[in-house]
Amino acid sequence: MNLLYHADTIAAIATAPGEGSVGIVRISGPDALTIADQVFRCSGPLPSERESHTVVYGNVTSQGKNIDESLMIIMRGPRSYTAEDVVEIQGHGGSLCAKRILRCCIDAGARVAEAGEFTKRAFLNGRIDLLQAEAVLDLVRAQSERASSAALEQLDGGLSDTFTGIYENLLSASARLEATLDFPEDELPEAILPEILADLSVVEQDLNQLLDTWEEGKLLREGALVVISGEPNVGKSTLMNAMLNTERAIVTDIPGTTRDTIEEGLVLDGIPVRLVDTAGLRETEDKVEKMGIERTRALVEKADFHIILYDVQQPIDVNTLEGKDPDLSLVILNKVDLAEPSALPQELSAFRCLRTSLIHSQGLSELKATLAARLSEHADLSARPQAVISERHRSVVTAALAELDMAKSYVEQNDDAVLVLAASQCRLALEQIGEATGKIYHEDLLDSVFSTFCIGK
Amino acid sequence: MNLLYHADTIAAIATAPGEGSVGIVRISGPDALTIADQVFRCSGPLPSERESHTVVYGNVTSQGKNIDESLMIIMRGPRSYTAEDVVEIQGHGGSLCAKRILRCCIDAGARVAEAGEFTKRAFLNGRIDLLQAEAVLDLVRAQSERASSAALEQLDGGLSDTFTGIYENLLSASARLEATLDFPEDELPEAILPEILADLSVVEQDLNQLLDTWEEGKLLREGALVVISGEPNVGKSTLMNAMLNTERAIVTDIPGTTRDTIEEGLVLDGIPVRLVDTAGLRETEDKVEKMGIERTRALVEKADFHIILYDVQQPIDVNTLEGKDPDLSLVILNKVDLAEPSALPQELSAFRCLRTSLIHSQGLSELKATLAARLSEHADLSARPQAVISERHRSVVTAALAELDMAKSYVEQNDDAVLVLAASQCRLALEQIGEATGKIYHEDLLDSVFSTFCIGK
Repeated sequence: MNLLYHADTIAAIATAPGEGSVGIVRISGPDALTIADQVFRCSGPLPSERESHTVVYGNVTSQGKNIDESLMIIMRGPRSYTAEDVVEIQGHGGSLCAKRILRCCIDAGARVAEAGEFTKRAFLNGRIDLLQAEAVLDLVRAQSERASSAALEQLDGGLSDTFTGIYENLLSASARLEATLDFPEDELPEAILPEILADLSVVEQDLNQLLDTWEEGKLLREGALVVISGEPNVGKSTLMNAMLNTERAIVTDIPGTTRDTIEEGLVLDGIPVRLVDTAGLRETEDKVEKMGIERTRALVEKADFHIILYDVQQPIDVNTLEGKDPDLSLVILNKVDLAEPSALPQELSAFRCLRTSLIHSQGLSELKATLAARLSEHADLSARPQAVISERHRSVVTAALAELDMAKSYVEQNDDAVLVLAASQCRLALEQIGEATGKIYHEDLLDSVFSTFCIGK
Repeated sequence: MNLLYHADTIAAIATAPGEGSVGIVRISGPDALTIADQVFRCSGPLPSERESHTVVYGNVTSQGKNIDESLMIIMRGPRSYTAEDVVEIQGHGGSLCAKRILRCCIDAGARVAEAGEFTKRAFLNGRIDLLQAEAVLDLVRAQSERASSAALEQLDGGLSDTFTGIYENLLSASARLEATLDFPEDELPEAILPEILADLSVVEQDLNQLLDTWEEGKLLREGALVVISGEPNVGKSTLMNAMLNTERAIVTDIPGTTRDTIEEGLVLDGIPVRLVDTAGLRETEDKVEKMGIERTRALVEKADFHIILYDVQQPIDVNTLEGKDPDLSLVILNKVDLAEPSALPQELSAFRCLRTSLIHSQGLSELKATLAARLSEHADLSARPQAVISERHRSVVTAALAELDMAKSYVEQNDDAVLVLAASQCRLALEQIGEATGKIYHEDLLDSVFSTFCIGK
């Protein structure tokens, strides 16, 4: 019996809050159909007497009173999202209807589901692995087409296959390593340790290849943080507006974004971008302003890319360039319609500079193309979207690589006593890789994965 | 053939935008199943070959590429929301998934649905009448349990039955009136005109009874606008917070509310309340502040109820009472923990006064109970929730009553020539009542009803 799996029946609202046409309450667990029988009135047989994968029209009722006109969808386990019996009640949208339906289900014996609990059950019941479970959340949160496609690829098992392949290769190398421990040292076939070393190197190579997808993954999941710096009145707001206006149709709401910090989201060539204006970064005695500036400074330090904006009518202050990596920066010489830039300071030569008149949209498309190209340097956007690893995956891969590295050095010592340690390092590496797919899991791991989900998923 | 009904196939996202677990795209029309066949890959028979009211698991695909893992629900007309063939595709939630699925459906030949178009089709196909269609929107927008119940009663046909009953009574009186026109004047049976008059009076009475439900309807649909007036620092914000804090669990977002005007929504004893703080209502030369004050003045004029707040430590300025109806106002003497009110001005005697210390929540529950009681004077909240008429219904009922009134006065003249006019007035009244249920409709009427719906409903 699985100790992390409590076989009670859970219920939650599965649609986003707010005004929609349809609100859904999802119920999963052994009593899903019994609860359906209690809360739902329909003509003909009771919900529990109906076939799987059928839809029934009726009314949700409570104490003989109609609560909502609704459709009920019946899906018996294991052919359901959680692999348990699942009932979905589709009522009229709006903030109240779904809440009323949920309350009826709770009154009839369901428990309110925790965040991600439906997907967790799908995992615990073996319908999907942990990577696929995470892909569900990536898909919901995806801000761009490319992020959606990558998440879908992961949901289809693309990343799972890669991790499983690596796991199996390491398992077989590891098994052969363990087998050598049974040989008396002088009878060990000569070729065997070099063979094992070669196998471990292949695993290492595959893990490193996975690591390479992390930057693209970060870009797709979180978006690139692009920070605009520049003196007041050089055109920072014009730049924000120009970037947003032309992309109005695909301006996105990146979760956690607050307007206070003058941050806007957009999608540039498939890459979600968080564009931040640092207006107000100056010395001040005002307490509140100081707090705001502290926050901005922290953002500047986290920036994936800098846009440094100058007004060519003003002297170029090279202090703004300080600490900026030329490969991750772009210098904009703005207002070229009003003046010719005088001699440029020598410090600028390391940076890619663009001449613009943003108010007339002059140079804007080159700016956007250059920005997109720079941002996507670590993400081959012409390639087919692939499943890309997340921060969690990076940490297990990095840990596995460290264990492997030690295992290899032990094997290279070719000493019987040390081979035992090599085998133990391999087992540790296996555990790490197993945690990626969830082949190996513990309560903390599941908590950290599923607690970021929304309720009802 | 119905000219207002274009039998093409429409599609729209039916779930609220934002992060939810499930997003639904709804397709309705003659090609719904053909489009389903094109966009959906599943094992086994094609969607169009499946039984009605079944659920299929599969993938939405576009040009051979998976777009989303999804469930498809098939409901063949007339057993569907629109009474046409309806297909619903349930994909993973999030802002992008549903949009991608919708795009596939559009590419496969569906048209993007207009606001309320699904419900409009349900009406045009005779599945529901106009009152029931409106109830759908009321249900989605409902802010309180009672509003939900009233909407559900209307959706169940409660209001339709009442209007239909009135229509039929008037139709029969009208038919007998028309019949008298064929009699030579002197052969007219003596009793007939008094009988018709009595019947018209019954209709009049029923219509007036309906009118009586309007105030409750307005309260439930729009909420009561309660405006707080008072000098600065008398405790207006404390009052707002005290009202909201204790009701935190049921604070609502009333559509159209902006935080700028310091307006908050809450539900008090089943009545949605829009509580407005008028801080800043003073003489000023500042242009922007003037605009704000103008807006506040307009709100004060529209107020359903006033709370006038005084600090008992300060002299009572009776100017604040000017123009306020004592029946629709409540005077709060605040900060009684700090001072005893000195002699109260004579002008206060007409008003219900409460003594409070809001910062200590002293007198708060009495304030809320009094407010709730005053607000619900026109709504018998102990009665079973009933379908209540809206602004549109009030306007047709009022118009019908005016026509009826003229019809009655013509009948009373008992003159052959004038009876023709009476009959024509009755026909006009019938048309008005017919517009309520949608028995009689025209494009403008439908536009005005359905344009306020959300897309996908």
